[in-house]
Amino acid sequence: MNIRTDLALEATEMAGSCNGVRLSSQTYSNMKVTKIRVLNSEGAQELGKEPGTYITVEFPSLSNTFRDTDSRLEIIGEYINELLPGEGTVLVVGLGNLNITPDALGPKSANKILATRHITGKIAQETGLDKLRSVAVISPGVLGQTGVETGELVLSVVKKIKPKAIIAIDALASRRLERLGCTLQIADTGISPGAGVGNNRFAINEKTTGVPVIAIGIPTVVDALTLARDIIPDFVFENDIKSEIYPKGQMMVVTPREIDLLIERGAQLISLAVNSALHQNFNLADLISLIG
Amino acid sequence: MNIRTDLALEATEMAGSCNGVRLSSQTYSNMKVTKIRVLNSEGAQELGKEPGTYITVEFPSLSNTFRDTDSRLEIIGEYINELLPGEGTVLVVGLGNLNITPDALGPKSANKILATRHITGKIAQETGLDKLRSVAVISPGVLGQTGVETGELVLSVVKKIKPKAIIAIDALASRRLERLGCTLQIADTGISPGAGVGNNRFAINEKTTGVPVIAIGIPTVVDALTLARDIIPDFVFENDIKSEIYPKGQMMVVTPREIDLLIERGAQLISLAVNSALHQNFNLADLISLIG
Amino acid sequence: MNIRTDLALEATEMAGSCNGVRLSSQTYSNMKVTKIRVLNSEGAQELGKEPGTYITVEFPSLSNTFRDTDSRLEIIGEYINELLPGEGTVLVVGLGNLNITPDALGPKSANKILATRHITGKIAQETGLDKLRSVAVISPGVLGQTGVETGELVLSVVKKIKPKAIIAIDALASRRLERLGCTLQIADTGISPGAGVGNNRFAINEKTTGVPVIAIGIPTVVDALTLARDIIPDFVFENDIKSEIYPKGQMMVVTPREIDLLIERGAQLISLAVNSALHQNFNLADLISLIG
Amino acid sequence: MNIRTDLALEATEMAGSCNGVRLSSQTYSNMKVTKIRVLNSEGAQELGKEPGTYITVEFPSLSNTFRDTDSRLEIIGEYINELLPGEGTVLVVGLGNLNITPDALGPKSANKILATRHITGKIAQETGLDKLRSVAVISPGVLGQTGVETGELVLSVVKKIKPKAIIAIDALASRRLERLGCTLQIADTGISPGAGVGNNRFAINEKTTGVPVIAIGIPTVVDALTLARDIIPDFVFENDIKSEIYPKGQMMVVTPREIDLLIERGAQLISLAVNSALHQNFNLADLISLIG
Repeated sequence: MNIRTDLALEATEMAGSCNGVRLSSQTYSNMKVTKIRVLNSEGAQELGKEPGTYITVEFPSLSNTFRDTDSRLEIIGEYINELLPGEGTVLVVGLGNLNITPDALGPKSANKILATRHITGKIAQETGLDKLRSVAVISPGVLGQTGVETGELVLSVVKKIKPKAIIAIDALASRRLERLGCTLQIADTGISPGAGVGNNRFAINEKTTGVPVIAIGIPTVVDALTLARDIIPDFVFENDIKSEIYPKGQMMVVTPREIDLLIERGAQLISLAVNSALHQNFNLADLISLIG
Repeated sequence: MNIRTDLALEATEMAGSCNGVRLSSQTYSNMKVTKIRVLNSEGAQELGKEPGTYITVEFPSLSNTFRDTDSRLEIIGEYINELLPGEGTVLVVGLGNLNITPDALGPKSANKILATRHITGKIAQETGLDKLRSVAVISPGVLGQTGVETGELVLSVVKKIKPKAIIAIDALASRRLERLGCTLQIADTGISPGAGVGNNRFAINEKTTGVPVIAIGIPTVVDALTLARDIIPDFVFENDIKSEIYPKGQMMVVTPREIDLLIERGAQLISLAVNSALHQNFNLADLISLIG
Repeated sequence: MNIRTDLALEATEMAGSCNGVRLSSQTYSNMKVTKIRVLNSEGAQELGKEPGTYITVEFPSLSNTFRDTDSRLEIIGEYINELLPGEGTVLVVGLGNLNITPDALGPKSANKILATRHITGKIAQETGLDKLRSVAVISPGVLGQTGVETGELVLSVVKKIKPKAIIAIDALASRRLERLGCTLQIADTGISPGAGVGNNRFAINEKTTGVPVIAIGIPTVVDALTLARDIIPDFVFENDIKSEIYPKGQMMVVTPREIDLLIERGAQLISLAVNSALHQNFNLADLISLIG
Repeated sequence: MNIRTDLALEATEMAGSCNGVRLSSQTYSNMKVTKIRVLNSEGAQELGKEPGTYITVEFPSLSNTFRDTDSRLEIIGEYINELLPGEGTVLVVGLGNLNITPDALGPKSANKILATRHITGKIAQETGLDKLRSVAVISPGVLGQTGVETGELVLSVVKKIKPKAIIAIDALASRRLERLGCTLQIADTGISPGAGVGNNRFAINEKTTGVPVIAIGIPTVVDALTLARDIIPDFVFENDIKSEIYPKGQMMVVTPREIDLLIERGAQLISLAVNSALHQNFNLADLISLIG
């Protein structure tokens, strides 16, 4: 089909009714949450998505910054929390390239996640900070920056610190422009860094890491070729059209002119929701002031 | 026509042969320069471009950084220099919003232009720096940041420092993806900040400022609607299509995923070429080391 | 005396009791406000500060970010508001160099001040935004970047937009390390950009602009020579000591290692307080979400 | 003694003549290189530095940017290269916190080091890029960001990719202001991230990693307490003085006001020298254009 999307919600829209897929949704004030369960390999094939749970949160817009007092954050935090084990260290991984704005969502979010794994001992006890869940946070960069497959880097850290769960944050591609920055996807199926580019060897999921991997992302771009295919669905794409949309083989994306703002706000939303999920007994605003 | 482009070269391609327009081009090693002269109001109407001279420089790609020893810089500098008066202060204006990556070309370029207007007196004489041309540099921001029309801000500074010419740097929109980051346009017709949004009251040109205004820019985006119209030229655009490409009225652009790199490299090219044009008797590398 | 400080509070501490100076202070929860009035030229000479009102706000620390719900913001906003005329456009000027961290407080604060002067007409009326006070915001850069005296640039804009008052934000130097980032000074005496470097020709004050100029700043550095003089007050500074503390004539400053955080938090505090002062009938949190 | 310095050169100056230390120096045009060999535990104790080789490169100033054609880069590259094994993957580690300017030298340098370990296969052979030395690059962040000891993170990556040598880049503290930004130290003794703060458990050196560890750094700050002690050497420091210089226990540093520029230029110098050392058969300028 060649329509590129990282959103299970869009995959279900394209696939129509499926036997191996269950959908349910719930509406909150100013927010809609759709839970998609890909039950088996049949559903996986129909959707092009691994079996597992995909939670899509839709907002009217992210045009304004999420404030730490927004009641929707706790609800989203609760959805994330349900996918986490009751206790033990959680490793948060900010995937993507900090220097490429549409790809910086992961590192920018990770930058605002409170790392606590090292807060131990007497002072922690006296200040009550020992009650915070143990959290480690890394932003491993991308293959072109490091020369090492991101999956390899993450696995080597996993081996060292032995977390009980992983939260992997990454920018997503959507099929629809109106979803950019207005949709948050939470999935328990893990993630394949650079998968769009074509390899699957270094996936970060429960199979490769031995622990649950929660993938969280917001769509920041629509692939330009996807937009073109979407506008003219019946058109037979010739090579010359493709080379026009990807001149010199360079990937072109469609994105709001204010992509920087979209990333800032998305990172704000994700970091608040994840901090809330990780430390449910703490007041979110207090936590934020610890981070700065 | 509704195809949006800031490049006179693309306007001539669309218009076909025109009476009021003259074209000539010259090829250099790894660079092609096309000079378009819009001779009169007839040509202006045919092209949708003000009468004046438009110089388009095409590179195979800007994928690598321009180095200060690149011989093409002096050639481009020479083209710019020809449009400047022989002496007197030049005001360089970096237009656009530093915080919006695709719009940051102007401020980022201005940041690397050597300001010299204040280098006077004994020390300047002793160091020979008094032989540098007098240059002032401002980055006035955009209306949404300042609450003041950019044209108004520039005019108030012009009134104060009375330059003999203005160089205005801005990010451009192209019609063609393959031109993004690979084309440089130099025009002597000035610029209308935010003109795309629909007003023309605060243009910065010879008429409003009383001195020559050289506009320099590199295309950084293709308007998403332009891409759509280009892919399906015969299609009658209905409102629902338009609202799909501009959801919530937000402007969507097509750009390389590595937009940050495109901007860095473009700012490097423009600042080197402008510094070269302004200080032709000085070695470019020496100048650069003064800027840091 | 050669002890450099921009804080009137420190000047009074050094001067001891003065005839021409009046002090009063008020304590709030977690904040102390001291009002210093330099009554006449006698007081001015004793303090080395222009006649006028200096309000110093002291916090236990700025180590945590100010949140938009902090009740201290309205109190500070009230102090600022008292110095402003009842109505008319206010021009906010962010002084300093965005690219030099300890000097970036002004531009970073200005970046978060809501510009509203252009919000007019029917839409503004329908949305109620026409009730926001008219505010213009500029960050003119510094002489080395622009080649133009900052005072000149500001005066040319003042002439154009004719504000009823000016708020000028700038980073300050303190004498005491413990005041860095924990003190906010509000003064109605204006500001002399680059005054430390030795000229006074381009001051921005009521005399040069014709309207009240409120200067707002937070100390971000202690001059290294001031620290040295402070540690060894009785010492006769020889030239070799001076050249050791200012090697190659370069200005050295003492600052927290986390200077970036200090600037972020200071810009947050100032922008929230100024936005509150300018739009007292609006909820601060709502305003913030307009800015993003 | 309580004078804090990371430079072996300053340690030798303080220690006077030592039995266990050998010094030799060589002067180049605009550059002086001093080689210090700490021969044994006696020398180590006298200097407070581990046994090994410390190469100090002194420049008149880093006030101008290093250009990629500067002949000094190859000389420095040669000194680094001598400490590396003849072949095999080199892991470059940028230590420090990208968000704290005086501490950002490591990550900023690493950002400009060409990663090549993943460039393999047919395309690499056809383009000749397979002749580049295999290089991996990581910026692991600091304990407060990640919750994991930096040494632990590096060791886990070492275990995975099995490099033949490590180059660790970090910002240094000097005793002397005039050395800030003008001195480069290369040592084969490894590094202890966060050692200043008091632990030594997670050192990155040949003993802990099994391969040579080359530490490269430039002094970016003088500890404020060191400056104070240096100015008044005979003074008995009382606690109240210490608490004045470290108010609220916060570390204060002395640094040029233009710390951002110092870091940019330092990162430029280090990355150029390291790229040169790693790929001696390649033209440096060509390499740079690969990085962008």
